Amino acid sequence: MQLLEDRIQKEGKILPGNIVKIDGFLNHRVDTVLLRELAKEFRRLFPDDGITGILTVEASGIALGTVCAEEFGVPLIFAKKAKSDNIEGGLYKSDIYSYTYKKHVTLIVASQWIGPNDRILIIDDFLANGEALRGLTEIVEQAGAELVGIGVAVEKGFQPGGKNLRARGINMHSLAIIDAVDDENGKFTFRKQEQ
Amino acid sequence: MQLLEDRIQKEGKILPGNIVKIDGFLNHRVDTVLLRELAKEFRRLFPDDGITGILTVEASGIALGTVCAEEFGVPLIFAKKAKSDNIEGGLYKSDIYSYTYKKHVTLIVASQWIGPNDRILIIDDFLANGEALRGLTEIVEQAGAELVGIGVAVEKGFQPGGKNLRARGINMHSLAIIDAVDDENGKFTFRKQEQ
Repeated sequence: MQLLEDRIQKEGKILPGNIVKIDGFLNHRVDTVLLRELAKEFRRLFPDDGITGILTVEASGIALGTVCAEEFGVPLIFAKKAKSDNIEGGLYKSDIYSYTYKKHVTLIVASQWIGPNDRILIIDDFLANGEALRGLTEIVEQAGAELVGIGVAVEKGFQPGGKNLRARGINMHSLAIIDAVDDENGKFTFRKQEQ
Repeated sequence: MQLLEDRIQKEGKILPGNIVKIDGFLNHRVDTVLLRELAKEFRRLFPDDGITGILTVEASGIALGTVCAEEFGVPLIFAKKAKSDNIEGGLYKSDIYSYTYKKHVTLIVASQWIGPNDRILIIDDFLANGEALRGLTEIVEQAGAELVGIGVAVEKGFQPGGKNLRARGINMHSLAIIDAVDDENGKFTFRKQEQ
């Protein structure tokens, strides 16, 4: 998506270790005008009218997930990363490894919010190693719900997450795929995708 | 706000320890149709046209904060609760006690996203002891920005957070204030507020 690629090229930063930092508009400071355009693009890419819910994971997926849920006219469910006292009853759980925080975390969704009649679209802001998204697909499976697809704003194409998810036959769309970064001049190379 | 009070009365649950659980529409599963109405009400209650940003805190404040930011036409900034590798440079920090997770956490905002020229509206989904909101006001102060006010969806009026914030002279609006809960019949008593 040209709008998003342009924004990454203009404002994105490359930190040591090929960490891509785009927290000026996507996941710390959030540009809701951009988010609305991303949500409209997901609506175009996933024209399925039978979607019953958007699933994402706290924290940084929530902003994009919220705008997408409104655009699709369905509820947002966000997986939590730790058990708090305020979640009761049955839970779907998936253990993942967070490369950002360098530790194992458990994704949790209260079982009352997704069931066998649901058709779920997973949305996340960022895809690198794909652990969070793998965990979310496990939760959809545990619920007995149907996974309609996965929509990601920014994918790091040089890390294995996207490849692994596509190999499973999941209908997946990333609005911008970064195939290479040049940390000397701060430039990003994007994968060419069909419109 | 009648719409929100009705929803709490209908779907809210009271857990032991007077924990109010409204995660079916506000902070686990999110009803974006309701959130849009809440955001419009905040826009009416804070008619200030000079607001430059909405500040909230991860994770459950982000959904409401995102819709409010879009409604006000300004960016959302959400404070993070732990230092990840992806935040660089100067930080505003505030230490708070999380009653939900029963531990001290540090709220963090990268200093580049709020500055002395900003006029900030703080938004959060829930107010009980007010630790998170106290931390956010400290971050606004550290930035040298102006605090326009605080908007909260649901306040537990029988806990001290709201009283403490109002005692500081902050322009504060809670859309529903729960003054009492009856855990035998599951009913909520709301504070009468001027429209």
